[in-house]
Amino acid sequence: MVSIQYNPVTSVIAEELREIVGERYVIFNDTEKLEPFSHDEIPGKGYRAMPEIVIRPRTAAEIAEIVKLANREMIPITPRGAGSGLSGGAVPIHGGIVISVDRMNSILEVDLKNMMIVVEPGVIANEINEHVKEHGLFYAGYPMSLETCFIGGNVAENAGGGKAVKYGVTSRYVLGLEIVTPTGEIVELGGKLVKDVTGYNMVQLMVGSEGTLGFFTKIILKLIPRPKYQVDLLCLFDSSESAINTVPRLMTGSGYIPTSIEFMDQASVKAACDYLNESIPYEKCGAMLLLSVDGMEEEQVIREYEAIGTLCRECGAQEVYVADNASTSERIWKIRRNIAEAYNLFYPRQSGEDIVVPPASIPEMVAEFRRLEQKYCVPIPCYGHAGDGNLHARISSDPNWTDEQWEEILPQILAEVYRKTAECGGRISGEHGIGHKRKKYMRTVVSEEYLNMLRVVKRGLDPNNIMNPGKIFDL
Amino acid sequence: MVSIQYNPVTSVIAEELREIVGERYVIFNDTEKLEPFSHDEIPGKGYRAMPEIVIRPRTAAEIAEIVKLANREMIPITPRGAGSGLSGGAVPIHGGIVISVDRMNSILEVDLKNMMIVVEPGVIANEINEHVKEHGLFYAGYPMSLETCFIGGNVAENAGGGKAVKYGVTSRYVLGLEIVTPTGEIVELGGKLVKDVTGYNMVQLMVGSEGTLGFFTKIILKLIPRPKYQVDLLCLFDSSESAINTVPRLMTGSGYIPTSIEFMDQASVKAACDYLNESIPYEKCGAMLLLSVDGMEEEQVIREYEAIGTLCRECGAQEVYVADNASTSERIWKIRRNIAEAYNLFYPRQSGEDIVVPPASIPEMVAEFRRLEQKYCVPIPCYGHAGDGNLHARISSDPNWTDEQWEEILPQILAEVYRKTAECGGRISGEHGIGHKRKKYMRTVVSEEYLNMLRVVKRGLDPNNIMNPGKIFDL
Repeated sequence: MVSIQYNPVTSVIAEELREIVGERYVIFNDTEKLEPFSHDEIPGKGYRAMPEIVIRPRTAAEIAEIVKLANREMIPITPRGAGSGLSGGAVPIHGGIVISVDRMNSILEVDLKNMMIVVEPGVIANEINEHVKEHGLFYAGYPMSLETCFIGGNVAENAGGGKAVKYGVTSRYVLGLEIVTPTGEIVELGGKLVKDVTGYNMVQLMVGSEGTLGFFTKIILKLIPRPKYQVDLLCLFDSSESAINTVPRLMTGSGYIPTSIEFMDQASVKAACDYLNESIPYEKCGAMLLLSVDGMEEEQVIREYEAIGTLCRECGAQEVYVADNASTSERIWKIRRNIAEAYNLFYPRQSGEDIVVPPASIPEMVAEFRRLEQKYCVPIPCYGHAGDGNLHARISSDPNWTDEQWEEILPQILAEVYRKTAECGGRISGEHGIGHKRKKYMRTVVSEEYLNMLRVVKRGLDPNNIMNPGKIFDL
Repeated sequence: MVSIQYNPVTSVIAEELREIVGERYVIFNDTEKLEPFSHDEIPGKGYRAMPEIVIRPRTAAEIAEIVKLANREMIPITPRGAGSGLSGGAVPIHGGIVISVDRMNSILEVDLKNMMIVVEPGVIANEINEHVKEHGLFYAGYPMSLETCFIGGNVAENAGGGKAVKYGVTSRYVLGLEIVTPTGEIVELGGKLVKDVTGYNMVQLMVGSEGTLGFFTKIILKLIPRPKYQVDLLCLFDSSESAINTVPRLMTGSGYIPTSIEFMDQASVKAACDYLNESIPYEKCGAMLLLSVDGMEEEQVIREYEAIGTLCRECGAQEVYVADNASTSERIWKIRRNIAEAYNLFYPRQSGEDIVVPPASIPEMVAEFRRLEQKYCVPIPCYGHAGDGNLHARISSDPNWTDEQWEEILPQILAEVYRKTAECGGRISGEHGIGHKRKKYMRTVVSEEYLNMLRVVKRGLDPNNIMNPGKIFDL
C-alpha cells in the first residue's frame, strides 16, 4: 500500500476554487452545510467522512480547471451524484474536494434518428424515460432508486436494477462519454456509435469505475422502441426455498426471457408494506417472485405471461396475481423499490449485501443465508434481482446487542457469506459497487494478480491518485 | 514514439520453446511452413511480415511460460487465431514468436442451467451454435467468416456481423475470460456472471484489444433461447440511394428492431454471385437490403416482417422477396458472406474499409463514396451492416494503374473518407480492428489525449511491450 500525502484545502485554495465556479457554488468552513456531503445511503456512521470543501460546477471546463488545481496542490477529489449510493463511493474518505454534479442536470439532446439521448451527469434517471416516452422510446435502466438517483452515478456504479434480466445493465446503453481525466484533460470516448473497435473500449472501462478513473461530464445513451404492453405477475410461494428454486427454471424452462425476476422473502415484503402502509397478502406466504413481461404485441405478452405463470404454478406457487394495468403494477413495484428504505428505518444496525453468483446458484446462496440466520441468531432478510444472480441480503443486528457485539459478529458472518459466494464463482457486488465499504473484502473473491491489473490502470491514468482515492482497492 | 529493441529468436531459445510445448508444435527455420503465418486476409503484400518462430501450445500454463521467456529475452509475441482478420492484427510485424491457438479448440462446458458455454480460443465460431442448437440455445455472434474464424479472434477484435442490429456485437456475450497477462500471469476476469461490479470491467477492456493486453485462454459466453422462427427479406431498390435511405426509417419507423439490416450495392451482389456461380435478380436493381426478423412466435415474426416489408415498399423497394425456409435463407446469406472473398479474387489491388458512423448518417456516407468514385475514377462498391452504421467500402484500383499510381491516389481517397467519417462523428473501424493497417489513421478520428490513455493502459499492463507490439497505436 502506497502512503498518500495530501494537502489541506486552505483559504487561498478555496478562493481560487470560488473564482472558477462562482462564490455561491462553493461550500467552505460551514460544517452544517458540508455534512450532507459526508455520507451516502449506507445506514449508520461507520462510513462517513467530511469533505473540506464542496463545489458545484456547471461545465466540463470548470471541472478540468478544478482537477488541474487539485493535481498541482495534491488535494483529493470525490465526484458526487445524488448521494444515493450504497458502498460509500461518493464519500470523501481522504477529505479534500467534493464535486457535486447537481447543477449539471440538462438533457442536451434527444436524437430521434439515431435513437439516442445525450445527458449531463446530474439528470435524474427517471427523467430520461419521462422525457422520451412521448416519442415511443425507452431507456431500459431501472435502478430501484430511479426517482432520485442521478444518471452519472448509475454510470459510475454500472447500476443494474429491475429490468436487467431482459435488457441488461446500464453498461449496455452507454455508447459515449465526455470525461475530465484525472489529470484534467477533457476527452471524448466512444460516440453515437452502436459498434466501434477504434482503440480499446475505454467507455466500458469507465462504466462502473466508481469515479476513480475520470469525471463524466456528458453521457450518450442508447434508447430502444418503447414496449407497448407490460404485465407483472406477483407469485406467492410457501417458502423462500420453493420461490427461489423456481428462478433457474424461469430462465431456461419457458424459452422466454422475462423482463424482471425479482425475489422478496416475507420479511422484506412486510418491511416495505409497513413502511408504505400498504397491504398485500404476504402473511400467507414465505416468499414472492415479482415477474414482468413486456413487448410490442399484446397477444405475445399474454402468451408469455401465461407460460411463465403456468411454470410458477408447476413449481409450487400458491397464488399468481396478474397486474395488467399501470396503477396496480406501480403499486407492486413501489413495494419492491422501498424495501431498502424500509430496512434502513426498521433495522438501524445492519449490513446491506449485494452478492452476485451464477444465476443457477441463487437457491444455494439463499439456503446459505438461512443457515447463517440460524447459526448467528440474526435476521437476514433477502430480496433482489434473482434472475441476474444478484441478491440483496440485509444482515441485521439483534436489537439487544451492543455495538461491540455487532462489530465482532458481523465480520464473521460476512466472511462466511463471501466464502460461499466465492465457492459459487460469485463476486461481492453485482450493482452497488465496492467503494470503501467492500474494499477490504476484495481478496475473498478475486486474485492479487487481478487487483494488480486494476492498480496499474489506475496509476497510469491517475498518477497523483487524485480521483476518488481509496475506493475499490488501495494502491 | 518509444524505440523498440527486440532480440532475435536464437536456436537456444527455439530449443527452450520446444521443451515447453513439444518439438512437433514448433516451426522454426522453415520459411515455407512459416509463410502462412505472415499474413491475414488483407489482400496484397503490403501488410505481411514473417515470424521467426511459430508455436502451437495446448494449455494456458504453456503460454504463461512462453510469455515469461519472451519478457526475459525481449522477444515480441503475436497471438494468432484462424488468420481470418482484416487489419493485420495477427501479423508479426516485429518478427519474434507467433503463438497459434489452433490446438486450443475444445468446447470445455455447456452450462445449461446458466445458459453459458465455456470454450477455448481456437474453437470455430460456427461450432458454438452447432453445439448448442440441440439444447434450444443460441450464440448470437454471426461474423461473415463464421465458418472459419476462431472465437478467440472474434473476442480479440470484438467481431460484429450480421445479427448485431438486434443482438449486439461479440462483447455483449463475453462474461468471463481466462487470460495470460503480458507478463505471464494466468488471471481470471469476470465469470459466469451476468452482472458484476467487483472492480473495473477488465473483461470489456480485453474484448477488442487485438491481443495487445493479454492472451485469451478460456472464454465464457452467454447463450440465449434459440429463436424458433426466422424470415429473411431481400428487398430490391433502384439505386443505392433509395436503399440506404430506407435504413434509418427501418430502425425507427416500425417499432420493431430487425435482427439484420444488411446493405449490398449492385457491384457487391454481382461479385459474390459471379464468385459462387449463383443467380439472383440483381441486374434490375441498384442495391439490395437483406433484412431478417426472428422470434419465438410465428405470428409475431409474420407481423414483423410484413410491417418491415411494407415499410420497404413505401420507401421505394421494387421487389420484396421473402425467404421463409432455411435453404433459401442460407442461399441469400451465403451471397452476403462471400462478398469479401469475391472481391479479393476480382480486385487484387484494393483497400477494404470498415468505417462506422451514427446509424442515421449511413446515407450521407454512401453518397460520399459515390462522389469519391466519380472524383477519382475508381470503383468503390459498398456493402455492410447498415443497421449498425457500419459500412464496408472496397476502394478498388483501376486495373490499368501502376502500383505507384495506386499508392499515390489511395491515401488521398482515404483521407477524404476518414475526414467525412469524422465529420459524421464516426470512427475508422466498426468490427475489423485497427491492427497495423489503420494505425496511421487513428488521429483522423480520435484525439491525442485519447491515444495517450490507451498508451498508459498498454504500458502499465505490458511494461516490456511484448504482446502484439505495433498494433492499434505506437507507444
